Amino acid sequence: MKILIDTFGADEGSKVLVDGAILALKQKDFIPVFVGNESELEKLIDGKIKDYEIIHTDEYISNDEDPVRAIRRKKNSSLVLAYNKLNEEGYDGLLSAGSTGGLLAGGIFISKRIDGIDRPSLAAPLPSIGAYTMLMDTGANMDCKPAYLAEFAIMGKVFLENVIHIKNPSIGLLNVGVESHKGNKLTKEAYELLSNSKLNFVGNVEARDLFTGKVNVIVADGFAGNIAIKSAEGVISLFKAQMKEVFYKSLKNKLAALAIKDDLAKQMGKFSSQNIGGVPLLGVKSYVYKAHGNSNAIAISNAILGLIEYINMDVINKIQGELND
Amino acid sequence: MKILIDTFGADEGSKVLVDGAILALKQKDFIPVFVGNESELEKLIDGKIKDYEIIHTDEYISNDEDPVRAIRRKKNSSLVLAYNKLNEEGYDGLLSAGSTGGLLAGGIFISKRIDGIDRPSLAAPLPSIGAYTMLMDTGANMDCKPAYLAEFAIMGKVFLENVIHIKNPSIGLLNVGVESHKGNKLTKEAYELLSNSKLNFVGNVEARDLFTGKVNVIVADGFAGNIAIKSAEGVISLFKAQMKEVFYKSLKNKLAALAIKDDLAKQMGKFSSQNIGGVPLLGVKSYVYKAHGNSNAIAISNAILGLIEYINMDVINKIQGELND
Repeated sequence: MKILIDTFGADEGSKVLVDGAILALKQKDFIPVFVGNESELEKLIDGKIKDYEIIHTDEYISNDEDPVRAIRRKKNSSLVLAYNKLNEEGYDGLLSAGSTGGLLAGGIFISKRIDGIDRPSLAAPLPSIGAYTMLMDTGANMDCKPAYLAEFAIMGKVFLENVIHIKNPSIGLLNVGVESHKGNKLTKEAYELLSNSKLNFVGNVEARDLFTGKVNVIVADGFAGNIAIKSAEGVISLFKAQMKEVFYKSLKNKLAALAIKDDLAKQMGKFSSQNIGGVPLLGVKSYVYKAHGNSNAIAISNAILGLIEYINMDVINKIQGELND
Repeated sequence: MKILIDTFGADEGSKVLVDGAILALKQKDFIPVFVGNESELEKLIDGKIKDYEIIHTDEYISNDEDPVRAIRRKKNSSLVLAYNKLNEEGYDGLLSAGSTGGLLAGGIFISKRIDGIDRPSLAAPLPSIGAYTMLMDTGANMDCKPAYLAEFAIMGKVFLENVIHIKNPSIGLLNVGVESHKGNKLTKEAYELLSNSKLNFVGNVEARDLFTGKVNVIVADGFAGNIAIKSAEGVISLFKAQMKEVFYKSLKNKLAALAIKDDLAKQMGKFSSQNIGGVPLLGVKSYVYKAHGNSNAIAISNAILGLIEYINMDVINKIQGELND
């Protein structure tokens, strides 16, 4: 199996992507195909990988660029080269820690959408104290029709069943109240549509239940999903800053902080994005995974292993099957 | 000055509302007009208030009822009686800890809207490490037009200038990115409208900056505003539960927790809703304040004092003036 790895886009540079591949190779056999600066990559690999390929380029798509325009014009960017290679026989999947918009645009314009899917979506696993929860969409699709939310639900269900191995995942709709009559025009119509589907739809979910593991897949338009996630991020930052202030306030507090430091790190580490590593771009005809820009080598390794499982489980054909049902 | 106090709706019962009024009377002179069960109220007052009125009723509007229907039909409910009295000469303001929907419906159908305001809105002050920040709307108005968001901005500006005493408050638009081209159809159009207004519009604000005090008024449709607030609430609960688990894990941790407990409570107390007490229902022709259902007597006292300041500053006429400008 050949996995294309876009080596641009990680905050810490190409090294984490190469090191992540080396780590993943200890658990699974695959051939990494690095896309990036050849001489730099050779130096980083330094004999530690036996079987690999390099596609050389120095061009890449940054987060500031208009993604659709960049995908169309920057033919030598790492992402466009990787996507084109992915369309060739023998190349199985693509991992990138770079521009989310670019990854989405490349998926739509180079890999193309699965028949019956209007809007591909990046799934986001949420930190949870209960069951595995995934939110779709989190920012790729702004103005959604009810049918798009139903598509997200179907794709999420197939992914969770096959890659995360959750039987008949429960589906919830992000809304302002649990009652069926609650919400805006979009969620009221989506509620109807999901209720009448064959999905295991359990109803509305309030944003305060995003992290309690009440349901497995929570669907939302990309605007609301993005607001939900970033609001949570904001409050966590605020909370951490407050804790830090308390911890450094006095010698007594510093000693107390020292005593609980390790347990605190372990407890909060459960919610680290590094464990998850990456998320699938669902709805396109090729296997694409997005890793966070701030990934370390462990996160990249986990992303590669997730991508391999995603490919092995033949999820794209299964989504197609579900849509034809 | 006479302040109507709906004594139904607080989780802890009528007692917190009477006790809150007693506390507030120590700081400001006013005549409380309690709406609720007369004999119970007399027992709670127990000679501790010199000058007061009671409007007797045992009927109230609960959170589960359709608010518009309830306001129209339950003529003897505490909220309808209070709103009707508020339309009479000599009654200045109304405080309720009951049904938010009922309060909004009563405002629209009994007090009526300010000329030029399409959608009244409940403002929500946010916990912030920086400047005072208020979010509008947080759930009253689901599907908004761009013009509604501009109305929220005007009402928020006048309230902050006069009641919170912030000069020329900055206005931000809740969005998925800071760039002007970001967002859904609503926010793109609202961005245009706000940019061309006389308001101190500073652009888009991401949800992660809701709590950093970057801007004074953040406008959003009620769906997105509600998702933002409840997501933050959810993650705080999760965080607190995790902390608690660490604190109780071992004797060593218990001792450490004991050492920092007071400082932690003080630091986090800054963000307590009890300090704020209540929020104004902006956009209607009478002075109405909403207290949280879980308010204690201090929160009610603060809400009453806020309501009196709101009345004294003549905010309704000032909003009307701003709209006529």
